[in-house]
Amino acid sequence: MELPSRIQNAIDSFSRIPGVGSKTAMRQILQMCSWDDRDIQEFGNTISELTSLVRCRLCGFYSEEELCSVCSNTKRMSNGVICIVESISDCLAIEKSETFNGAYHILGGVMNPLMGIGPDELGIDKLVKRIAENFNSVILAINPSVEGDATCSYIKDHIPDEINVDRIGFGIPMGGSLEYVDALTISKALENRKKM
Amino acid sequence: MELPSRIQNAIDSFSRIPGVGSKTAMRQILQMCSWDDRDIQEFGNTISELTSLVRCRLCGFYSEEELCSVCSNTKRMSNGVICIVESISDCLAIEKSETFNGAYHILGGVMNPLMGIGPDELGIDKLVKRIAENFNSVILAINPSVEGDATCSYIKDHIPDEINVDRIGFGIPMGGSLEYVDALTISKALENRKKM
Repeated sequence: MELPSRIQNAIDSFSRIPGVGSKTAMRQILQMCSWDDRDIQEFGNTISELTSLVRCRLCGFYSEEELCSVCSNTKRMSNGVICIVESISDCLAIEKSETFNGAYHILGGVMNPLMGIGPDELGIDKLVKRIAENFNSVILAINPSVEGDATCSYIKDHIPDEINVDRIGFGIPMGGSLEYVDALTISKALENRKKM
Repeated sequence: MELPSRIQNAIDSFSRIPGVGSKTAMRQILQMCSWDDRDIQEFGNTISELTSLVRCRLCGFYSEEELCSVCSNTKRMSNGVICIVESISDCLAIEKSETFNGAYHILGGVMNPLMGIGPDELGIDKLVKRIAENFNSVILAINPSVEGDATCSYIKDHIPDEINVDRIGFGIPMGGSLEYVDALTISKALENRKKM
């Protein structure tokens, strides 16, 4: 007993999403099959419309126009602070905290020589030029990992000395419990202790 | 900093799938945004093609034609055995075990008076007629639950007495461990013990 090819094709498409296995894909597609035709059509259309997305010329965020809403916001751009993140999701996470009011730059990854990702692939020379011309303070909001640390060092080394470079703080997450946090995080939290 | 509306729409569509939250949807859609345009288009098309699916006139399985591959297989249909399942996924699970060679009937749910699902909604009179005319043995492969048990009893009561009605066996799952199995399953396993 085989599923009609249309359903099987949809399941195959779905399983190509990272993190979706064939069982999940089947369950979800069979669920969708019972939706109204109009809803399915709409779903398919919203996906198809994701083609030829434009990225902001300056920061690399997805945008409908040449510049994204942050890069075209003169108030935020004149703040003198730029936050460098790995990915668009990281950028959205920071925006959600509503505590940063400067510019962004999305690297699109971190340096990883084994994967052939070096400074050229991430466009770090262009970024350094952008920083030197427009900002006096840099926040490196790059995730902690061997590659992330190396990327931060590389960027720091290439930015003119008169520009202040910070890396986001590491420590115990809010709501976290010392009991369950790993040893490295605890050592970072002790190192980053702050006078009350 | 907002995502372009096209991306936001796709995320909203995605979160409508049962079991997909807004965070998962965002992560997956942002992943998809980096795919080739052709792949995205293909994905969207496979979804859009899920409209106006036809169900097999006899068993209720999705089918491209009037009858599904099982119902049009005279060898399987003449076996005299019909297996009644709740959903298409249950049916596929049984097919995967390659141990059943008869006909199927997909109920599309179980009786649930609180949700307004009674014998009429499940088409049980049509099923009983189908069984009486074509089969001499029924396997009720309906999941164990209060509603499932009630549905099984109802079907059993309405099937002519000369037709043999079985329910699938309950017990310890293969690879399972008595230590971790719940008490009800253990009591069922003891009840369903079998002479070696």
